[in-house]
Amino acid sequence: MSILIKNGYVIYGENLDVMKADIYIEDNKITKIGKNLNISADYVIDAKGKVVSPGFINLHTHSPMGLFRGLADDLPLMDWLKHHIWPKEAKLTREYTKAGAYLGALEMIKTGTTAFLDMYFYMDAVAEVVLESGLRGYLSYGMIDLGEPDKTEKEIKVALETMKFIEKLSSERVQFVFGPHAPYTCSIALLKKVRELANEHKKLITIHVAETMTEIGQITSRYGKSPVVLLDDIGFLADDVIIAHGVWLDSKDIHILARHRVSIAHNPASNMKLASGVMPIERLLNAGVNVGLGTDGSASNNNLDMLEEMKIAALLHKVHNLDPTVADAKTVFKMATQNGAKALRLDAGVIKKGALADLVIIDFNQPHLRPINNVISHLVYSANGNDVETTIVDGKILMLDREVFTLDEEKTLEKAEEVVEKLAG
Amino acid sequence: MSILIKNGYVIYGENLDVMKADIYIEDNKITKIGKNLNISADYVIDAKGKVVSPGFINLHTHSPMGLFRGLADDLPLMDWLKHHIWPKEAKLTREYTKAGAYLGALEMIKTGTTAFLDMYFYMDAVAEVVLESGLRGYLSYGMIDLGEPDKTEKEIKVALETMKFIEKLSSERVQFVFGPHAPYTCSIALLKKVRELANEHKKLITIHVAETMTEIGQITSRYGKSPVVLLDDIGFLADDVIIAHGVWLDSKDIHILARHRVSIAHNPASNMKLASGVMPIERLLNAGVNVGLGTDGSASNNNLDMLEEMKIAALLHKVHNLDPTVADAKTVFKMATQNGAKALRLDAGVIKKGALADLVIIDFNQPHLRPINNVISHLVYSANGNDVETTIVDGKILMLDREVFTLDEEKTLEKAEEVVEKLAG
Repeated sequence: MSILIKNGYVIYGENLDVMKADIYIEDNKITKIGKNLNISADYVIDAKGKVVSPGFINLHTHSPMGLFRGLADDLPLMDWLKHHIWPKEAKLTREYTKAGAYLGALEMIKTGTTAFLDMYFYMDAVAEVVLESGLRGYLSYGMIDLGEPDKTEKEIKVALETMKFIEKLSSERVQFVFGPHAPYTCSIALLKKVRELANEHKKLITIHVAETMTEIGQITSRYGKSPVVLLDDIGFLADDVIIAHGVWLDSKDIHILARHRVSIAHNPASNMKLASGVMPIERLLNAGVNVGLGTDGSASNNNLDMLEEMKIAALLHKVHNLDPTVADAKTVFKMATQNGAKALRLDAGVIKKGALADLVIIDFNQPHLRPINNVISHLVYSANGNDVETTIVDGKILMLDREVFTLDEEKTLEKAEEVVEKLAG
Repeated sequence: MSILIKNGYVIYGENLDVMKADIYIEDNKITKIGKNLNISADYVIDAKGKVVSPGFINLHTHSPMGLFRGLADDLPLMDWLKHHIWPKEAKLTREYTKAGAYLGALEMIKTGTTAFLDMYFYMDAVAEVVLESGLRGYLSYGMIDLGEPDKTEKEIKVALETMKFIEKLSSERVQFVFGPHAPYTCSIALLKKVRELANEHKKLITIHVAETMTEIGQITSRYGKSPVVLLDDIGFLADDVIIAHGVWLDSKDIHILARHRVSIAHNPASNMKLASGVMPIERLLNAGVNVGLGTDGSASNNNLDMLEEMKIAALLHKVHNLDPTVADAKTVFKMATQNGAKALRLDAGVIKKGALADLVIIDFNQPHLRPINNVISHLVYSANGNDVETTIVDGKILMLDREVFTLDEEKTLEKAEEVVEKLAG
């Protein structure tokens, strides 16, 4: 299949140069970029007055949690988890989780996310949804053993079964990732085993680290060191690890993360909503740590809108540091695109010849995106997910002019409502 | 004219009770609310799966500044003002300002704002736009005399001319407000004169107060007291004053504001983007101060989206206080609606019998607003301005199914681009 996108403002290359150009896509790759390309294509999209952007890469989420959107807000973390989220999650079946995954996939397509790193249960069901939706999913089963050896083995078993299930799908778009939940919910034995298995199977690892002060307190009192130092000491850290959050990091932690080339998934909206704290973005970037952007789950955000997340990231760090030059628009835009791709070892996140055709078209013919003084600024500071008109992943059109081709929108919304009614019962 | 809105989820009354009901609007008021109303009407709108909300009230903006959206970001305040904003503003004509006002009005209608409090230049031109757009505008000419007596008189003259111009329009929807810019840009003489004139003409006053630490430093070194104490000492404060920002307030300031029943327009996105600081929301609310919500101008936000502003407000105060219970969804929703109405002495911001028919319909048939676990939570934490489908002000439909009736969208966007090109030359 081939697609020709004509007349758009293209955000080109690693430096985000904005230029009027046409883009030609053949199979799953961008094969030509230039002025007035005269090539016939299966689909020709006129992008006049529109912006062609790299698709957004959500580097940390729990995609089925849209089911719990708005179910409980404005609560302390442990109250929220213990009395609202965990009791509901205990009732989740494969079928219910899959309904949540459909809702999440639909929302991501409609708001311009083209790839995401996920952690949840029933990830085989999520994998089926990713395959069907056309998205690019990096899927981890969230392993929690709470230090009980029986559970360690059981969790490893589920993870490996999920890996096999995903590998049998034989799709480059669906990848397995190891997902030990966090240092405070996983034993050292589990963490060490994950490191071994990741090496053996050449898989990425994602894990929640240093999200709350409570966690720092727990790990320090249990092990006498910070979560990052602990992970370093047991040989867990390497350039295949993506830690989510990284809110409470001291200088030593940051140095360790930089040395091992660990990536971080920054989740500003969730960290703000749960009052977890503020990630030290300047110190991490100055140390050379690769920082991507994530929304976290829809129960703590409460959406999967990466455009909104960029604005929240940029604003949070300015006021926190009382310095408006921190987290400038280009830095944040790169976090939401190319940095995420780097963490996932994905040849996407940038529009250039030879890269994967994962891109979105955003309609700038709207009052809040005019005048077109600065495309990157408008995307970071003024746009939102609803402005995304067309989403293309792996050279396939998943949404055109807001119409989703791969999923049944009405059925997906209805099914999600049904599941919530059943969970309430 | 009459309008019947059927089958929606209505956000009813001051307590924001969500119920399925029909709403009947006659002339400019809500005259009936109930189940299955059987009344014929000029317009019948089916709101199935949609939410009928009070329209949003933007309590502080500079509506024509959309022209400068994205022109300069990520800069220190004085650099931004001196090298980017002020040189452009010096070139503004009545015609250019009016083009900016059209852009702002269009954006507000499309994102569900029904009333706004504005401060800028050429407010007669802005008044014409408000009249034409169908919005409700509270318009102040921003007075700045920098302590020069000649300028004091000139500024008073322009303000009074603007007042006369607006009063001649004879529209309840367009109201004049006195707008001395700030204690650091206005002389005591000007501020005292404004107080006199406001009493005489029974008009509201709006003024920037305690926005930045720099301002606190300037006023303290000039007068030996805080901006709020200064305004109190000269007899400026009363329940007709709406101060914008109120970021740097100590306990004495808060006590004074509460005692005089001054309202505050909180602008979280602007305060974050310019790294001004964080308003002490809990202390203000606990003291009983009426706090509304504003976007500030589009050069420091960079949009006029009140739905986005609600989320930013709720998130900011949670992380700043490291307490997720601060600025809960209902509190923030009230700030964006009924608190703004209270400050403007407007019988709106609440859906109830007899109130002005200023309301919006929001489409919840979208993945990021499902399942409908909690309507207020979804509006605050997950919705954005593009979700607004229909905007009704003073009983007139300004937008239906995203189509704006009162303004020419294409012409408005084109004109804004033209003006920006001229300003660049």
